[in-house]
Amino acid sequence: MRGLVYHGPGRTSWDTVPDPVIEEDTDAIVRVDATTVCGSDLHILRGDLPEVTPGTVLGHEAVGEVVEVGRAVRTRRAGHQVIVSSVSACGHCPSCHDAMYGQCRGGGGWILGREINGTQAEFVRVPFADSSTHRRPLYLPLDEAVLLADLLPTAYEVGVRNGHVGPGDTVVVVGAGPVGLAAVALARLYSPRRIVAVDLSPSRLAYAARMGAHAAELPGQMVAELSDGPGADVVIEATGDPDGFLLATRVVRAGGHIAGVGMHGKPVTLHLEALWCKNVTISTGQVDTSSTPWLLDLLAYGRLTVSPLVTHRFPLERVKDAYEVVSHGPDTGVLEVVLHRELPEPSS
Amino acid sequence: MRGLVYHGPGRTSWDTVPDPVIEEDTDAIVRVDATTVCGSDLHILRGDLPEVTPGTVLGHEAVGEVVEVGRAVRTRRAGHQVIVSSVSACGHCPSCHDAMYGQCRGGGGWILGREINGTQAEFVRVPFADSSTHRRPLYLPLDEAVLLADLLPTAYEVGVRNGHVGPGDTVVVVGAGPVGLAAVALARLYSPRRIVAVDLSPSRLAYAARMGAHAAELPGQMVAELSDGPGADVVIEATGDPDGFLLATRVVRAGGHIAGVGMHGKPVTLHLEALWCKNVTISTGQVDTSSTPWLLDLLAYGRLTVSPLVTHRFPLERVKDAYEVVSHGPDTGVLEVVLHRELPEPSS
Amino acid sequence: MRGLVYHGPGRTSWDTVPDPVIEEDTDAIVRVDATTVCGSDLHILRGDLPEVTPGTVLGHEAVGEVVEVGRAVRTRRAGHQVIVSSVSACGHCPSCHDAMYGQCRGGGGWILGREINGTQAEFVRVPFADSSTHRRPLYLPLDEAVLLADLLPTAYEVGVRNGHVGPGDTVVVVGAGPVGLAAVALARLYSPRRIVAVDLSPSRLAYAARMGAHAAELPGQMVAELSDGPGADVVIEATGDPDGFLLATRVVRAGGHIAGVGMHGKPVTLHLEALWCKNVTISTGQVDTSSTPWLLDLLAYGRLTVSPLVTHRFPLERVKDAYEVVSHGPDTGVLEVVLHRELPEPSS
Amino acid sequence: MRGLVYHGPGRTSWDTVPDPVIEEDTDAIVRVDATTVCGSDLHILRGDLPEVTPGTVLGHEAVGEVVEVGRAVRTRRAGHQVIVSSVSACGHCPSCHDAMYGQCRGGGGWILGREINGTQAEFVRVPFADSSTHRRPLYLPLDEAVLLADLLPTAYEVGVRNGHVGPGDTVVVVGAGPVGLAAVALARLYSPRRIVAVDLSPSRLAYAARMGAHAAELPGQMVAELSDGPGADVVIEATGDPDGFLLATRVVRAGGHIAGVGMHGKPVTLHLEALWCKNVTISTGQVDTSSTPWLLDLLAYGRLTVSPLVTHRFPLERVKDAYEVVSHGPDTGVLEVVLHRELPEPSS
Repeated sequence: MRGLVYHGPGRTSWDTVPDPVIEEDTDAIVRVDATTVCGSDLHILRGDLPEVTPGTVLGHEAVGEVVEVGRAVRTRRAGHQVIVSSVSACGHCPSCHDAMYGQCRGGGGWILGREINGTQAEFVRVPFADSSTHRRPLYLPLDEAVLLADLLPTAYEVGVRNGHVGPGDTVVVVGAGPVGLAAVALARLYSPRRIVAVDLSPSRLAYAARMGAHAAELPGQMVAELSDGPGADVVIEATGDPDGFLLATRVVRAGGHIAGVGMHGKPVTLHLEALWCKNVTISTGQVDTSSTPWLLDLLAYGRLTVSPLVTHRFPLERVKDAYEVVSHGPDTGVLEVVLHRELPEPSS
Repeated sequence: MRGLVYHGPGRTSWDTVPDPVIEEDTDAIVRVDATTVCGSDLHILRGDLPEVTPGTVLGHEAVGEVVEVGRAVRTRRAGHQVIVSSVSACGHCPSCHDAMYGQCRGGGGWILGREINGTQAEFVRVPFADSSTHRRPLYLPLDEAVLLADLLPTAYEVGVRNGHVGPGDTVVVVGAGPVGLAAVALARLYSPRRIVAVDLSPSRLAYAARMGAHAAELPGQMVAELSDGPGADVVIEATGDPDGFLLATRVVRAGGHIAGVGMHGKPVTLHLEALWCKNVTISTGQVDTSSTPWLLDLLAYGRLTVSPLVTHRFPLERVKDAYEVVSHGPDTGVLEVVLHRELPEPSS
Repeated sequence: MRGLVYHGPGRTSWDTVPDPVIEEDTDAIVRVDATTVCGSDLHILRGDLPEVTPGTVLGHEAVGEVVEVGRAVRTRRAGHQVIVSSVSACGHCPSCHDAMYGQCRGGGGWILGREINGTQAEFVRVPFADSSTHRRPLYLPLDEAVLLADLLPTAYEVGVRNGHVGPGDTVVVVGAGPVGLAAVALARLYSPRRIVAVDLSPSRLAYAARMGAHAAELPGQMVAELSDGPGADVVIEATGDPDGFLLATRVVRAGGHIAGVGMHGKPVTLHLEALWCKNVTISTGQVDTSSTPWLLDLLAYGRLTVSPLVTHRFPLERVKDAYEVVSHGPDTGVLEVVLHRELPEPSS
Repeated sequence: MRGLVYHGPGRTSWDTVPDPVIEEDTDAIVRVDATTVCGSDLHILRGDLPEVTPGTVLGHEAVGEVVEVGRAVRTRRAGHQVIVSSVSACGHCPSCHDAMYGQCRGGGGWILGREINGTQAEFVRVPFADSSTHRRPLYLPLDEAVLLADLLPTAYEVGVRNGHVGPGDTVVVVGAGPVGLAAVALARLYSPRRIVAVDLSPSRLAYAARMGAHAAELPGQMVAELSDGPGADVVIEATGDPDGFLLATRVVRAGGHIAGVGMHGKPVTLHLEALWCKNVTISTGQVDTSSTPWLLDLLAYGRLTVSPLVTHRFPLERVKDAYEVVSHGPDTGVLEVVLHRELPEPSS
């Protein structure tokens, strides 16, 4: 089959690689009908995740059809349409019993496209298929379904839930990329008073405004205003950048929450000399995808609108072009790019 | 009357100062029967809190007798034995309605011995007396009662409660000074599996062991051991020191809590490049003293033993000697020093 | 002044009564600009609350202007526009410290129009004015502001919050009177999947539909449908009737919540032989009005629309007509009736 | 093999029955080394659970050795010492994803000894063996381990956790049978102020006192005393009896919790006319056994002492004698009876 192979920092190729086969009884092989390029894939490409060894097929998000299952797989079988979670869950370790699948100690966690071959390929081997895939209702479009593999549960679990967003809250989202904008959409479920989006990119701020946020082009001014008042009840830090984190700690109110969603590659400075007395809670987190069934329901029942997040479509074999497009996202307004097995021609 | 007056960094005097008088209808004047010297008083003396102006009487913890009340005070009157909370609460602002008295926006918060004259004196004016004092049952010794003014609610609210200590947990307390040891005593209420105390001072570790903690003389080794396993469920950081905070972030397990109790004077480095994916929660906090009535009940019903925390007693007029003793606490095993109005001779 | 005096079951008169005066230092006298007739007033009139003695002025909801305050009142003064909470709070007892003002043990709780003279009069004495009134922003119409005195906090605290309504939930509201419909409006803040309203009155169901609920004219059929599925996540029982309660226990799913908001006059049968194994939580409750400032904010920021709940207006002196209209509410579609000091002519 | 077969109300026999075999890939066959007789077994025998069909082998608690596993079982294999949970969990349905295994919709729940053959036999087929068994450390005695199959998680999850027991609380346990006494032991983990046990049996009250509870021989007097004060913070109702439930509703304080643990066979009367305004929470529940690993840890680390709960031991083949003894428990002080595969002679 064909897949995107990592060859070390900055180098990938769209290559012929061996078809995946059932290795463990709990595996499933899934034909990839749609996949995406995630911000963390760019981190890998930059060499920020040295644990990714050359030769690995990248990608950790997919929607597709099960083509084969191991003999210990109970709830999936060939022909099932499934969402492949970015997180694999053994289902039996203490972390999995606590629904903290991202911290699975039984051989799961975020391994797809990182420790084992991933989803940016024609087929993918999915470990622990019972716990690591979700049935896709046919009426849910591929473009929306693939967001359930990682983006939406990340924005919800690590951002909105950890940040304890509630009715009447002032929510600041720092970083209006795909995960930040998904957090805007999900925070709105809880009727905050207002959501302020902060980004350096005017096109991303325009998206944020379209999704119902107030766009803060001048974070400095916003900080001043919020600092006059008590500050933000919740700050969702979706930049993965030290400056983004610093801003978050400046705009949060006493007693507020900072939910870190960004993937950080460097230490940050935490001004405890100012924060020690402010009763602030800071949370970090990797997605567990425990909320995926619930988010799927919200999409299915029309309670959640996320289709504006998908700005581009490519055929799977043009995955390298997709990386190129995504890497310029902050400047160009590109958000989520979906790669399709069957797509006559790209939408852009 | 006599009181300890601050004259700028490093300088105080035991001076004659004007008797406090009722300034607002909600004030009470309390005769100080017992007070203490807190770690934050040392911070003031070092000049770390520039908002404290020369001429201020220091001290923010007291037990004593009400001698006069303003006409708007409803629940206290002359003759009442009271604990004076370190935190004054207007009782009517949004923060007070949320029981977040330490963040009072109506003129309260930690103001005693900081923005207004404090308790290291023969008498003290207590603002918002209804909300800022607690009746002391006569059977509760002064030495224990005075710990309810600040130490015990701090260790409980900011450490044990914010850290979500529960049965079976592995709890690490970094810093075995008075607040760390109080956290050990309070954490035990929740039947943790074990409490590990970390400190550089052997005498403080000996105290920690006496209070039921495992004393870790070699934090390096402990970190290694905890790192083999999943790490600590809860870390209570009671040093206010960047190294203490760093240790806390190293020993916490994925999904665990770090409760910062220490008063920090400098920024710390937060290794988000390692923590972003660990689902860790970090909380900061200033005490609200909302738990004081409950802690008083626990003491009254014999559920909590804190008397070992008081290692020294002085007469009030020897307050400067008390500062001297407290400032050498880490080396000498001194924990809490209580200053009494009536004490024939010091216990040391 | 004039006020509505209770003379025992079934008998009231619009009478001249003595003007209220400051009795305690913490009292305020408020000129009543708007008040309402509540379902509980009908209970009093029926004799269900024998603690209400003849001679009492009825009513416990008001909006108006402070005309005088006791000398211990700190945050209100003559000229302030205020909402008078149905619950008076001493502010200093253990219940008040827990924000459980409805259970105040310091002389407060629901006493207005029950233990002391109430708000269906030209003036009312409000005990503990600092804790028992809320400033009304002038842009908030009287008709909406008066709903904050009791109706909205009851529907929120006792219904929506105690019921733990969340995004994606199936919520059943049994009883589509004013409090049930307010619960519909407030539950929508949390993006439930659907809200099903149950009532015997077609006109009330029509209102429910207008407010965004699915109206279940045939509860039997709805029960059957929900019973096929897992049942309701949350049931808000707003009838105060044994049959309403029974229905609630039938439609709740395993693991779901029943939040009792209704005021019950008789015991109910609880089928524990069916429910013991269903992990159901049942909560009862009297309003605390602790959420009033927050609800006021939601109204002020346009996050909450409740004006359809007010169906009728009367001048204050026609309060007996208002009782008449309200008592036929279930049949006629009357919901909330607001009585105004200054109203040229009734809206109906 | 031999097993206890149910033949309809009041009739059982110790019979030769077919050896269990693997029926589903997820099954395990376990040799029963220890089992018990539970209060719910007596309910079955009385005919209270008509869903139990004649021919069923009874019993739902066991400790033993795995002798065979289906090919889809991943984490257990022949030779493993395991605790067999009373609740079987498919692990993949929505209820199981919420750790609400007792409500499993995938074919599990409490089915052992109820819908399928149970544990009062030489061998038992355990469905969903990965999720429905727990490894037993060898140092944990059979007598204690078998309590983890049902008794301890029931007392903890349905009683102590649902009741929100916390430090300083007044806890009333109504019914001092095995589950009530286990609740006493588990509530003590949270340092309540006092635990009051209520029972009609003096011998059971004596046990309660030995386990650290205050024994209330005259519930009437206790109710009077608690009613003078605010009442109990938590009531754990462990009788399954309408009178026990009534008592619970009388002694709970405003704002308190009633956690129903008892298995009820009849409706109860709920005095909502008195409770509607008291902010009381009532929970019902079937055990999920989600807390078993945690309770096992607490036992292993010596934080929990439950051995006094086992008052009698029998060899397995004398299971009918065990039923006889258990059925007279309330009068004779018998608590938990453990049946052993290998026991030279009974301890009584």
